[in-house]
Amino acid sequence: MTMPKASQAFPRAEYLRRLAAVKSEMQKREVDVLVVTTPANITYLSGYTSKSGYVPQGLVVSSKEEEPTFITRRMDGPAAIHQMFIDRDHVIGYPEELIANPDRDGYDAIIDFILDHESSRGSIGLETKFLPALTVEKFKSRAGGAKIVDCTNVVSWIRGVKSDLEIAIMREAAAISDAGMLKAAEVIRPGTREADASAEIIATLVRGADGRPGTDLASFFLCATPRTSTCHIRWTEDTFKQGSQVNLEFSGVRHGYTSPLMRTMSIGKPADHIRRLHEGEVAGLEAALAAAKTGRTCSDVAAAFNTTLKKHGFSKESRCGYAVGIDWTEPTASLKEGDMTILRPNMTFHLMLGNWIDEDVGYVISETFRVTDAGGEPFTKLPRDLFEV
Amino acid sequence: MTMPKASQAFPRAEYLRRLAAVKSEMQKREVDVLVVTTPANITYLSGYTSKSGYVPQGLVVSSKEEEPTFITRRMDGPAAIHQMFIDRDHVIGYPEELIANPDRDGYDAIIDFILDHESSRGSIGLETKFLPALTVEKFKSRAGGAKIVDCTNVVSWIRGVKSDLEIAIMREAAAISDAGMLKAAEVIRPGTREADASAEIIATLVRGADGRPGTDLASFFLCATPRTSTCHIRWTEDTFKQGSQVNLEFSGVRHGYTSPLMRTMSIGKPADHIRRLHEGEVAGLEAALAAAKTGRTCSDVAAAFNTTLKKHGFSKESRCGYAVGIDWTEPTASLKEGDMTILRPNMTFHLMLGNWIDEDVGYVISETFRVTDAGGEPFTKLPRDLFEV
Repeated sequence: MTMPKASQAFPRAEYLRRLAAVKSEMQKREVDVLVVTTPANITYLSGYTSKSGYVPQGLVVSSKEEEPTFITRRMDGPAAIHQMFIDRDHVIGYPEELIANPDRDGYDAIIDFILDHESSRGSIGLETKFLPALTVEKFKSRAGGAKIVDCTNVVSWIRGVKSDLEIAIMREAAAISDAGMLKAAEVIRPGTREADASAEIIATLVRGADGRPGTDLASFFLCATPRTSTCHIRWTEDTFKQGSQVNLEFSGVRHGYTSPLMRTMSIGKPADHIRRLHEGEVAGLEAALAAAKTGRTCSDVAAAFNTTLKKHGFSKESRCGYAVGIDWTEPTASLKEGDMTILRPNMTFHLMLGNWIDEDVGYVISETFRVTDAGGEPFTKLPRDLFEV
Repeated sequence: MTMPKASQAFPRAEYLRRLAAVKSEMQKREVDVLVVTTPANITYLSGYTSKSGYVPQGLVVSSKEEEPTFITRRMDGPAAIHQMFIDRDHVIGYPEELIANPDRDGYDAIIDFILDHESSRGSIGLETKFLPALTVEKFKSRAGGAKIVDCTNVVSWIRGVKSDLEIAIMREAAAISDAGMLKAAEVIRPGTREADASAEIIATLVRGADGRPGTDLASFFLCATPRTSTCHIRWTEDTFKQGSQVNLEFSGVRHGYTSPLMRTMSIGKPADHIRRLHEGEVAGLEAALAAAKTGRTCSDVAAAFNTTLKKHGFSKESRCGYAVGIDWTEPTASLKEGDMTILRPNMTFHLMLGNWIDEDVGYVISETFRVTDAGGEPFTKLPRDLFEV
C-alpha cells in the first residue's frame, strides 16, 4: 500500500502561484536552481509541516520544472509524500548513513541531486544566512563551478504578501489565539500554579476553536509577578497570588500559520502605573492600525505608535512589530522607524507592543493585523482590555 | 526594585564544576575565551532557559574569570539576571538598534565585549558549526588578529556525562513522560480527534508528575493510521477509528532536561506483523540495555540491538539512539555501529527504536537510560507493551 495524500490546506493552483513568484525572482537573479532550506519557506512552497528540519533537507526549485523536488532523510519521505502537493516522484529520501556522519551529510545528497539533474547549473541560489558556514563552503567547493548566489529572504519576502486563502487560515489561527486568551482569563486565579494555568491554555490552543483544531503549538510565554519585566519565560512552578500581574504571549496555529496575541492580566486591581501604561499603549495601538494603510511604510506605523505613546508619557525601546505568518516571525519587514518597506494589501504584521521598562515593570499587548487600504485590520476579536481577573 | 533570583535547579558548585571542565578543554585547545551560542550549552553552564535564542546571544567563558558573562538583547537581560546563577554584573544587554539591522547585530556586541575585556585574546573559541557563515566571517574579520578556533561540540561532549544531580532531574522528566503516556492510553479512543487526545496528553506534560510540573514542552509527535510510517508529524484533524494504530513520541521537561519516550498503541487488536515487530524490538531493546555497560562502546549497543532484531526477521535502517539531555538530542554520540564512543557511567541516551519500514508499516518504542557498570538503566517505569486501548 502506498501513502495517501493528506487533505491539503491549499489547492494546487495556490502553490503554483507561489512558485511562479519565486521563479520570477530567480530569473531576476539569474539563478537556475534555488535550494530552499528554511522550514517556513518549505511549508510555504509545498504544504509540508512535518518537523524534520533538525537534519539537512532542501526543497529544490528548478526554473525548468513545474514542481519542486524535496530531498530529505529517507524516514521523512512518507510524511513529505503525505503532506506535500507535489508528485511522489519529487520526494527523494537520502540514506541513513548521512546522519551523524562527519564526512557527508544531507546537503551532499542535495548537491548530488543538482549535479545529476541540472545540466546547465550556471548558478545555484542558497539561503546562506540560515546555513552553517561549512555547508555554504561545501556548496561552493562541490558545485562543479556553479556560482553560488545568496538568496537569503527571497522566498521570505514573497511570503510577506498573503493571498486571501492565507488570510482565511490566519483568521482561523487568530480565533484559536482568542480562545486561549479567554481560557487564560478563566483559569488565572490566586492559588493556581502557573504551570496548571498554562496546561489549560495550551490544551485550548491544541483543541482549537470553531471546530478547527490547532495543528501545532507555537511559542508560549507566561511572565508573571515578580517576572513581569521578562519576555521569553515559558511559566514557572510558582503560584499566582492576589495582586499578581500576568503577561501572556502565544498563538494558535493552523497549517503552520500563526496569529500571535498578547494581553496583560491582573489578579485584582492593576497597579496605577500599569493602568496608565495600558492607556498609552492602547492609544498607540489604535494610532498604529490607523496608519497601516496601503502605500504607507513600516516606519510610518512605528512613528504613529511612538508619537502617541510619547504623548502619554511613555516610550518603547524595541521595534513595535514585525512581519508574521508561517512559524511566527518573518525575517523581513520590521515595524520600526527607518524601515521604509512599503505596505501592500494583505501584508500581515504582529503589532507587538510588549514594553519591558524596568526590572519590575513590564506590560504587553499585541494584535496581528493585515494591511488594507483603510488601515490595519486586526484578526483578534478580543477587547483591548487590561484584563482584571 | 531589582529582579530577584529564581530558585535554582542546581547549586552554584555544580555550575562551577561544569565551567571548570570547559576551561580545562579551553586550555587544551589554547583558547583564551570561548563564546557559547548554542541554547542548550548556555542552559548547561548557567541555568538560563528563557527562549531568547532566536536573536544573537552568547555566553562568554574567559579562562581568567570564575563566572561567565552573558551578552543578550537588552529586553532579555532581566530573565538572565533572574535565572542564571551568575552575578547581575555579568549580564550585559545589547541595545535594540542591533535587532533587524543589516549592518550590525548582537554578535558585534559580543565581539566588542571581547575586544574591551580580553587583553591577550590570543584565540577565541566559537561553536562554528551552529553559526551562520557570515557570523563566523565577522568574528574573523573583527577580532583584531585573534585566531578563531572551532570549538563546535566542546561543551556538548562535556554535557554527555551527567552528574547525579542531573540524573535526578532527568528522572523527574521521565516521570512526566510516563504520566503523558498513561494519559495517552486513557484518551486514545475510537471517535476521538487526534488533536483532542493530543491536548490532554500535552496538558499532562505541562502539569507534570509527583507534584513537579513540566517546565517547558519539547517536541511531540502523534503519527496514527494511515500515517504510521511517518515519524515527525504533530497530530492531525482526523479521528481515531477502531483498528487505528498510534505511534507516540514525546518527553517531559524539567529545567531544560528531557527524557524522551516512545510507545505504540493500537485501538483493538494490533495487526500480526506489528505484534511480531514489537516482539523483536523489545528483545532488541533488552539486548541493547544489557550491552550498555561502562567501558563498552556505542557501537556495541547498536550491534546488540541489530543482531537481536535480525534474529526476529527484521532490521532497522536508522541509528538506534543518540545522546540525550538538555533540549533533547545532544549532537555527539550516536548508538550506531561504528561509533566507537566509550560508554562512561551516567552518560544518558535515548534508545530510539522507531522503525519505519514501509509506507504503511511503522512501529515505535524507546526508553531513555543512563549507563551503569551493570548496563543501561532506563528511567521509565512503564511496561514495554504494545498498548492495546
